[in-house]
Formats: sequence, C-alpha cells, structure tokens
Amino acid sequence: MKKSKPLVGIIMGSDSDLPVMSEAAKILDEFNIPYELKIVSAHRTPDLMFTYAKTAVKRGLKVIIAGAGGSAHLPGMTASNTILPVIGVPIKSKSLDGLDSLLSIVQMPAGVPVATVAINGAKNAGILAAQILGIQDSSILNAISRYKLKMKNESIKKNSKLGG
Amino acid sequence: MKKSKPLVGIIMGSDSDLPVMSEAAKILDEFNIPYELKIVSAHRTPDLMFTYAKTAVKRGLKVIIAGAGGSAHLPGMTASNTILPVIGVPIKSKSLDGLDSLLSIVQMPAGVPVATVAINGAKNAGILAAQILGIQDSSILNAISRYKLKMKNESIKKNSKLGG
Amino acid sequence: MKKSKPLVGIIMGSDSDLPVMSEAAKILDEFNIPYELKIVSAHRTPDLMFTYAKTAVKRGLKVIIAGAGGSAHLPGMTASNTILPVIGVPIKSKSLDGLDSLLSIVQMPAGVPVATVAINGAKNAGILAAQILGIQDSSILNAISRYKLKMKNESIKKNSKLGG
Amino acid sequence: MKKSKPLVGIIMGSDSDLPVMSEAAKILDEFNIPYELKIVSAHRTPDLMFTYAKTAVKRGLKVIIAGAGGSAHLPGMTASNTILPVIGVPIKSKSLDGLDSLLSIVQMPAGVPVATVAINGAKNAGILAAQILGIQDSSILNAISRYKLKMKNESIKKNSKLGG
Amino acid sequence: MKKSKPLVGIIMGSDSDLPVMSEAAKILDEFNIPYELKIVSAHRTPDLMFTYAKTAVKRGLKVIIAGAGGSAHLPGMTASNTILPVIGVPIKSKSLDGLDSLLSIVQMPAGVPVATVAINGAKNAGILAAQILGIQDSSILNAISRYKLKMKNESIKKNSKLGG
Amino acid sequence: MKKSKPLVGIIMGSDSDLPVMSEAAKILDEFNIPYELKIVSAHRTPDLMFTYAKTAVKRGLKVIIAGAGGSAHLPGMTASNTILPVIGVPIKSKSLDGLDSLLSIVQMPAGVPVATVAINGAKNAGILAAQILGIQDSSILNAISRYKLKMKNESIKKNSKLGG
Amino acid sequence: MKKSKPLVGIIMGSDSDLPVMSEAAKILDEFNIPYELKIVSAHRTPDLMFTYAKTAVKRGLKVIIAGAGGSAHLPGMTASNTILPVIGVPIKSKSLDGLDSLLSIVQMPAGVPVATVAINGAKNAGILAAQILGIQDSSILNAISRYKLKMKNESIKKNSKLGG
Amino acid sequence: MKKSKPLVGIIMGSDSDLPVMSEAAKILDEFNIPYELKIVSAHRTPDLMFTYAKTAVKRGLKVIIAGAGGSAHLPGMTASNTILPVIGVPIKSKSLDGLDSLLSIVQMPAGVPVATVAINGAKNAGILAAQILGIQDSSILNAISRYKLKMKNESIKKNSKLGG
Repeated sequence: MKKSKPLVGIIMGSDSDLPVMSEAAKILDEFNIPYELKIVSAHRTPDLMFTYAKTAVKRGLKVIIAGAGGSAHLPGMTASNTILPVIGVPIKSKSLDGLDSLLSIVQMPAGVPVATVAINGAKNAGILAAQILGIQDSSILNAISRYKLKMKNESIKKNSKLGG
Repeated sequence: MKKSKPLVGIIMGSDSDLPVMSEAAKILDEFNIPYELKIVSAHRTPDLMFTYAKTAVKRGLKVIIAGAGGSAHLPGMTASNTILPVIGVPIKSKSLDGLDSLLSIVQMPAGVPVATVAINGAKNAGILAAQILGIQDSSILNAISRYKLKMKNESIKKNSKLGG
Repeated sequence: MKKSKPLVGIIMGSDSDLPVMSEAAKILDEFNIPYELKIVSAHRTPDLMFTYAKTAVKRGLKVIIAGAGGSAHLPGMTASNTILPVIGVPIKSKSLDGLDSLLSIVQMPAGVPVATVAINGAKNAGILAAQILGIQDSSILNAISRYKLKMKNESIKKNSKLGG
Repeated sequence: MKKSKPLVGIIMGSDSDLPVMSEAAKILDEFNIPYELKIVSAHRTPDLMFTYAKTAVKRGLKVIIAGAGGSAHLPGMTASNTILPVIGVPIKSKSLDGLDSLLSIVQMPAGVPVATVAINGAKNAGILAAQILGIQDSSILNAISRYKLKMKNESIKKNSKLGG
Repeated sequence: MKKSKPLVGIIMGSDSDLPVMSEAAKILDEFNIPYELKIVSAHRTPDLMFTYAKTAVKRGLKVIIAGAGGSAHLPGMTASNTILPVIGVPIKSKSLDGLDSLLSIVQMPAGVPVATVAINGAKNAGILAAQILGIQDSSILNAISRYKLKMKNESIKKNSKLGG
Repeated sequence: MKKSKPLVGIIMGSDSDLPVMSEAAKILDEFNIPYELKIVSAHRTPDLMFTYAKTAVKRGLKVIIAGAGGSAHLPGMTASNTILPVIGVPIKSKSLDGLDSLLSIVQMPAGVPVATVAINGAKNAGILAAQILGIQDSSILNAISRYKLKMKNESIKKNSKLGG
Repeated sequence: MKKSKPLVGIIMGSDSDLPVMSEAAKILDEFNIPYELKIVSAHRTPDLMFTYAKTAVKRGLKVIIAGAGGSAHLPGMTASNTILPVIGVPIKSKSLDGLDSLLSIVQMPAGVPVATVAINGAKNAGILAAQILGIQDSSILNAISRYKLKMKNESIKKNSKLGG
Repeated sequence: MKKSKPLVGIIMGSDSDLPVMSEAAKILDEFNIPYELKIVSAHRTPDLMFTYAKTAVKRGLKVIIAGAGGSAHLPGMTASNTILPVIGVPIKSKSLDGLDSLLSIVQMPAGVPVATVAINGAKNAGILAAQILGIQDSSILNAISRYKLKMKNESIKKNSKLGG
C-alpha cells in the first residue's frame, strides 16, 4: 500500500529495527492507509532526520511513527522538528530489556510530546496512527471498529477450544 | 473554554489527580480547544467509565486524555471501549515514583494502544491532543506552530540573562 | 473437575497465558475444588469481562483467579466489578520480565484490593483460592494440611539423596 | 471492635508500622469484623511468630494480615506456619521506596502463597480480609456491597464540584 | 571433606539451588574446612529450619551459609534464630534476575544482619566463611593468602596469551 | 573566566539546569580554562543545537559538556553533529531520580559516544574536560595533579577531626 | 572504647558518611569491642586505602567495616588488599536511593567477597563484626545472646502498649 | 597496530571480557592509533592496577579504556590513580543485565570522573579515545570525520534496499 501519497511516515534508526517496525506497516496495509518506510537515524544521519521532520507537513504526512532503541532519540527529535503528532516505539534493547528505550522516548519535557506505545509495540503504533487519521476519515474509523470486533470475536472463540 | 461542544475529554481517576491534570486543560484553553473535565474512576465507577468511553464518539469527542496513578487502568480500559485515540498520563505515585503508573499505562497489548506521555506530563497530553485535532483543522496547526515558536524564542532569550 | 458447579473462576487475557494459568487448575483438581477456565480479555472483550465479574456471585463463584501480563488490567477490573475476592497472577512479560505485570496488578488504589501472587505464580493462586474456600469447608482445610505435610516430607527426603 | 473473638489477626514487625497498619483495623471496624492487633517480629521474636501462626486456627482466626518492610519475612513465614490465608502488606521502606518490601513478600515459592496488596495498602488488606470472610457470611458481603456503592457515589459527587 | 565435625553449615531452600550452592562446598573442600550440606526450606520445613538454626552453636557450627531465591527468607530467618554469623546467597530467580532474592536477603532490619554476597555468589560465600574461621585459625588465613596469590598469578599469566 | 576564546562549551536544555551545570563552570574557572555557558535545548531550539554543534570545531571549542534531564537528548544529538568529544551530564529528574536521564544519555548506539558522568555530576564533567585538554597542555595536567593532591590532603586532614 | 588495641576497623569514604557509620561504632561500644574509625577514600586517597588494607592484619585488626555510596569501591578494594573479612555498608545516595551503592558493593566477582549489609545498615555491620569475633570469644557471643534477648523483650513489651 | 608506542591503554578485569573489549581495539586499529591490551584486575591484581595507572603518563599513554562487570571497580580505581582521562565500559553481567556494572562505573564521586559509555559499548570507547586524541592531532579528527561520513552513507544506502 505504498502507491498512494503516504499519510504516515514510518521511520527507524536502523534496519535491525525492521522486523519490529514492519508490524506498523502491516496493520496500516490492513487499514488501507498509505505510508512510507524509511531508515532515518538520529545519530548517524541527523541532517536527514531534520529534513525529514521539517518537510513532513509539506509532503502531506499526517502522522509520524518513529522506532528506536537504547538512547532512543529519534522520536523526540522528530517531534522537535514538526508540528505533526509523533508516535514513539521503544525497541527492546540488548542490555536493559528496552527500559532504556522506553524512558528515552516517553519522558519528554513539557512542550514536545511523543505518543509512546509499549516496548516493541509497533503494531499498536500503526493502530494509533489509524485512530488519529480516523478523526477526519470515517471510513478509517469504521475499519477500526471492524478490527476491534474481529479481535473480540477471535478472543471469545478461543473459549470454545478450552471446552470451558 | 468549556462552553462550546467539547472535542477533548479529560478524565482522571481521582480529584487528587486534578493539580496535575489541570495542566492539560490550561494548554487546551490556550489553543482555544473546547474540552470537558471529569472524575471517572476505573475502579470506583467502572460503569460510568464504560458509558463514558462508549458514548464518546456519539457525544462528539475526538480525543480522550486519561490520567491515573499506581495500577493505572483508566487509560487502557477507556481505550478498550472506544475507537478514539486515548492519551494516557501516568500520575506520579506515592511509593514508586510513577514507574508503576507508567508501566501500567504504556505496556498495552497488541490491538489497544494508549498514547502515553511522561510521568505527570499532562501539559504534553494537551499539546498532543491539539496536534491530533490539527490533522483536520489548520487553525490549530497554526496555533501549535506559534506555540513552538514562542517556546523557541523564550529559550533563546534566556541566554541573554546568562550573559553568555 | 469441571462437572460440579464451579466455585472458582480462572480467567486469563489470552490463550498464550494458558501454560502458566493451567497450574492453578491442576492444583484445584488436586484439592477436588470445582472451577471453570475462561479466556476473558480486559482489552479485547471488556463487556464480557464486566458481565463475567458482575454475574460471578449469582453464578455461585466464591473466588476469581485472574492472570494477565504487561499492562495487566484484568485482575483489577474484575475486582472493580465484583465483591468476591480476586487473586491476580502477573504473567511474565516479553520485555520487562513481568515487573510491568506485577506493578499493574498489585498497586491497586484504596477500596479495590487484588490478592497478588508471584510472577507466574498460578499454582499459588490455586492454593490461595483453596485456603479462602477452606474458611467454610473443613475438608478443604484438611486437604491443605495434607498438602503442606507432603511438601514438608518431600523436602526432607531430598536430604537423604544429598548424603548429607 | 476488639471485644468479640477475633476473626482476623493483624500483625506487624514493629510499632513503627502501626500508622500504616491501623488502616486495616479501621476498615475492619467499619465492617464490624472483630480482629486483634499485635507486634510480632519475624526477626526479633521468631518463636512468638511461630506460635502465633501455628495456633491461629485453634484460636479461631480465619485470616491473618501481616505487614512488614525491607527484607519483609513476616507474611511469608506466617504463611509457612498456618493453613489460613495470609495477606501481606509491603511497608514503604526508607531506602528503596518499598520495592524491597514488595518483592520480599510477593515472590513466594510454589506451595506457600501470600495474598499481597499494594505498598502501604493496609486498608485494602482489611477489605480483602472482609471479602474472604464474606464467603461464609452474607452480612459481610452486603456490607462490602454498600461500601462499594458509597465509594462510587462519592466519586461521582466530586464531579459536581468540578463544575464539569 | 565431610568426615570431620562440620564447622560450616551450607543450607538451601531447594535441591534446584544445589548447582549454585555446591560452589560453596567446593571452595571449602579446597580450604580443608569441614562442612555439612542440607536442604532446609524456610517455607516448606520451617520447624526444621528453626531447629537447625537453634542447635547450630551446640552442634559446633561456626558459620552458616544459606542460599535462597525469590522471596528469599532462609538466610534472614536462620539469622533470627542463631547468634552465629549467617552468610546469604541470593539465587538468580526465573523472573526478576535475582533482584528479588538480593533485596529479600540484604535489606534486613537493625538487629539481625545477614552477610550478603553477590547473586549466585556461592563461591564467595565459601571464601567469606573461610575468612571468618581464619580469625581463630592461622592455617586457614595462610590458605586464603595462597588462594589470593594463585588468583593473582593466574590473572597475570593471561596477559602472556594476549601477546600484549 | 569567559574572556579568552572558550575551549569548552557548556550547554544545557533549560535554565532550571543551571544550579547543577554551574558546577562545571566553577571547576573550569579553578583550572583557568576558558569556557562558554549557553542554554541550547534539543527540543525547543533544535536548529540552534545543530548550528552550535556543527560550528563548534570552527569556533575553537575542543570539548562540549551537555547537561539534560528526563528524555535527555541534548548530549547525544550534539555528539551526532560534531567530531569533538561530548561529555553528558544526566540531570536528576522529578519523577525517576535521574535514572531516565542517565539511560537516555549513556546508552548511545555504536558510532556516536557520549562520555557520561554521574547523575548531577557536572563538577566531574568539568574535571574530565580539563583532563581531555590536558592531553595537549601540560600546565592543565599539572593543575589537575595539584587538584588531586589537594583532595587527598583534605581527605586525610578530616581524620584528625575524628580524633581517630 | 577506642583505648584498647582495635579489633575492628571502621572506614568510610567521606565524613558525610559519619552519621550513618557511627551506628557501627555505637554498637561495638555496647559490646565492649575496641575499634578505630577513619576516613579512607578509595578515590581520593587510594594509597592510604591500600596501606590501610595491607597492614590491617599486622596491626591486629580482625574485621573491617567499610561504608561508601554511589560508585562505592571502598569495601571491595579493601577486600582485594586483605585476607580479613570485610563488611560493606552501602550508603544511601542522593540520586538513586542507594541502589547504586548496594550493587557496587555486593556484586563482587568470584574470589573477593564483601559481606554486604542493608543500605545504611551500619548498626548491623557492627553486630556482624561482633558475631565474627564471637567465633573465638565466648564473652562476645554471650553479649550477642543478651542483645538478642533484649530486642525480643522490647518487641514483646510494645504489645502491652497496643492494648491488644 | 601494536608496534608504535601505545597512546591508549585498553584494560579489562578478566579475559572473559575480551570479546567485548576487543571492539575498542578494532576501531583504534581502523583509526591507526597505537594501543596496548592488558588484563588488569582491580580485585585480583590490585597492585598491578595501581602500578599500571600510576605509570601511565610516564609510559606515554594519553587515554585509558577500562572495562569491567558487576561490582565494576577497575575504571574508577584507575581514574583515582592517574590524571589521564579514563573511559569506562560497563560489561553486561550475568544476573542484572549490566545495570550493576553501569552504576558501579558511572556514579563516581566529585573529583574523580570516569567517562562512561553504554553497556558493552567498547566500540564507542575506542571512538571516544580517538576524539580525545583528536584534540591535538588533526589527522585523527579527519579520520573521525571520514568515519562519520561512512556511517551516514551506509545508513542512507539501506533505504534503497527498503525500496522506500
């Protein structure tokens, strides 16, 4: 679903984050929401990150999803350079289980929020992006309603297997 | 700014959370965004919470901000009962500095995101709500741009006092 | 032991919690205490959870055991909707070793307790349920006495293998 | 409410825990449940603790509430010496905010559960004791229902003060 | 080295702790210090633990090494029942990496110390026991000196392999 | 000591960090090392931060000291934009005692180090900057030697007051 | 009790640790055990520390108690330089509540144990030193027995005040 | 690159740290900076450590990189015995994921800084050493510039593989 003009930008610090972050892409595909997927590193390509964030509105993006691990600066620095809502995904890190990623992303100072989801919670980042776009697009809201209904039914159905 | 039909619902588990959560209200006032402010407790008034969340779309709300501390279930349970984006504010707790509040809110399972901000970060919850509403309202986007510019100028001005 | 009218309800947020939570069922079987086992998700099936909790007394349940991981809201929300004692089992989570599950369950606000056991401590949840039922049923109390004696003897016997 | 034969034993390691633990006594008074209140230290009076726990059934106790801080062994050791349900209250400690107390109490090995409540959650320990006793006494169950209703109404009433 | 009358008692809550705790035995063998090795569970065999601790002086023990995991009460409860120095070994736990074991053992209240070593640090517990016995036995002190010298030489020798 | 061309840049995210960060300035004064002191916020003035970092070499700076709290991105983002050594000072935060600041600063990905000192350790940041400059300036090295000697003598002198 | 030849050396990194560490001295006074009290800083006076540790046996010391906070290296480095048992007291630190002090002291590598007590647990360090000396001096063992009895009686007496 | 007179000393407590610490050596090789690599244990060879640190200036070293895990005293004690800048690498530990190593290294008291990098961040320690040496050697600064450019280009190139 990358053909239409993207509404959501999914960025991550490294291609090692791709297995996690692609969950965001998959769920946006499921909701028929066009997105783009990029490697944009706060620490290795800071200029690219600045340009990406500063041109996001102009390029038609409505929401940015940024995933990073360890000293995870990508979500917060992107938020510093755009007025769009930025969703942060803390990537589980090698040493501290993602606690470092989580605190680096969520504890932003007053004035520059990052909408933080769970550690490795890229799927939820995609759903949250859809909910935000749903503000102005009732077809997306309806798709979310159907998604919630499907989750509910699948959960209930599992009981029949329990024989409970 | 409570006269117009509210677009943002600010809810909290207890009136002891009001000093923190009123920061969200103040910033929405600054952005001229109508909101409502309610005590809705996941644990003491679960039915009220369900009704609040389930009727939110119908009542015209676009975003819900929910603050809670300790075993902080209000944001996540609200998110379970609505398709609107829900912003969670972890309130600093008496014993564990808000780490319990943060983890209770942010670590949501796949399917039901909560957009979590910093511990006691109610001001940022308000700004994030504005950013989300800005998706469909360029006047709000412009107000956020002005707010960011003001922050920038105030920050720069502080240097003159340093004499640096 | 599911034929008699269940006295204990064992619920969990997801069937991925079943390997842990079935330990509660096994020990109740050992104590001849009838129970039911259900998937009831606070986040995917909130209405089912409410109905489950609100009808628990009427359906004859005496104790509820609820297991959940991450932002673990099932035990606390069940406790909010029933006057029965609710035992919470924090499930070990993928990222934070179950510390998130533990804090989400145990740090309940005044008025709505959850009797929390160890991370993945479903067996102890079953024993605790038996102890609670033992309040009114001396045959259960006797079974617990025998269980404690058996544990004691097994522990002592291990010394003979040490040759100490 | 100490005149009737006590059904609940409230014990704590030190009189410095009394300001916290007396919350358990107050709520039991409110529910008209007879209790006793004792200083029983796992570390300073281990024999007294053993005797207390071992004679609890014979003396007519139905539930024990034990509060302790730091290396908090009182709840678990009491549970090791009785078949009654034991509720543990982690007392907030001077250095580690009660995280040490919580982990010392909740992480019990398989076979010996402690029903752990929040850090300093003595009030909830009292409510949980009442819920357990309610298993066999519908007047207590009714009192808990009324208590929950009162909490609900007080929470809702606070909204009128908000003017929301 | 179990033939002579033991000077050191090595106890552990469960035979699952044996692979860790046998490191204490091995180093005592190396120092020619007689010891005994027992399964003594604070939670499953509390009476045995009390008897063990209370008779330790009379039976000629000089130091007790106690290993336990999770809500690790064995070292502290042993210390409560003897005047001998007790060395605590926090066993690495399944869920919280041994942080629960460590805090349960080390944070003892004033009056009842436990000499705590590192998580899984049973070897050091053995060396510490030897150092304590060395107070009155210069042959043990000399053995420790030789041990330290051996460690030093092995450490230095590794440099030759580095080719540095 | 701000008249000479500064060799060290001391920057911080907010003037609320000044009481901590001025300790770095004081120690540089003591070592007669010229510095500049600026408010440069990663989140409120990202362009200023980029310019500051990118022009640092050209302006003659040799070391940058950056202090920040919470989601502390200033040190790492400065390091991303310069080849100079950057020293990070985690500022003690309101909610999590500075653990968030520390992890945000120290857990940098491979390729972009930040030389992190203790929470609120601005004095040590100044000393470290001096040690780095001492690489090429033996008068600074000598000053550090004298400083270490003074510390040593003051520490020893305190014993005479103990009367020990 | 400083006139006799000291058997216990109490050292600490800074005179700011004295209010905590003097608790060790007080309890040794109570047990009539001669000690010395010194400021010996691992970081400011490393040579003094080495000399202190290396000459401890020769000077007649039998046990060393070392208190330190933050990156607390004094206990471990003292242990590296002596064959005597070293007791470590983690001092509560300004930023991380003493968790840093505790981990710096207790997590020693195989070969060099430090007998760690609770955060700020200097009184217990003194008692542990007495227990160690009691190995060879029955009068000290008797004093510890009396101390334990006194603690027990005081604890029991508090119950009469409760009126329980 | 060990033939020239070393400018950087890389030391570690044990050869088990070599797989991590050799990353520092590799990057120094890449920058053509001569170094030496040694096993120097704070706890097993304290005298060697003191001598190493005290003679470092005289032997021509400009920077020391020290890696250690658990109660990680090597970096701080080296810093106590030299005026050179010391870079500390916290090695990921077996039980606490390297949090113990990190806090033991970074929380140094005022007067003795250690420039701490990420857990297992030996590569960054090498780059930081290069940045420090770059203060006086523009060829190293140029090499760092090229390294940063290479990182940037590799990061950007990965986008072409994404097809984004």
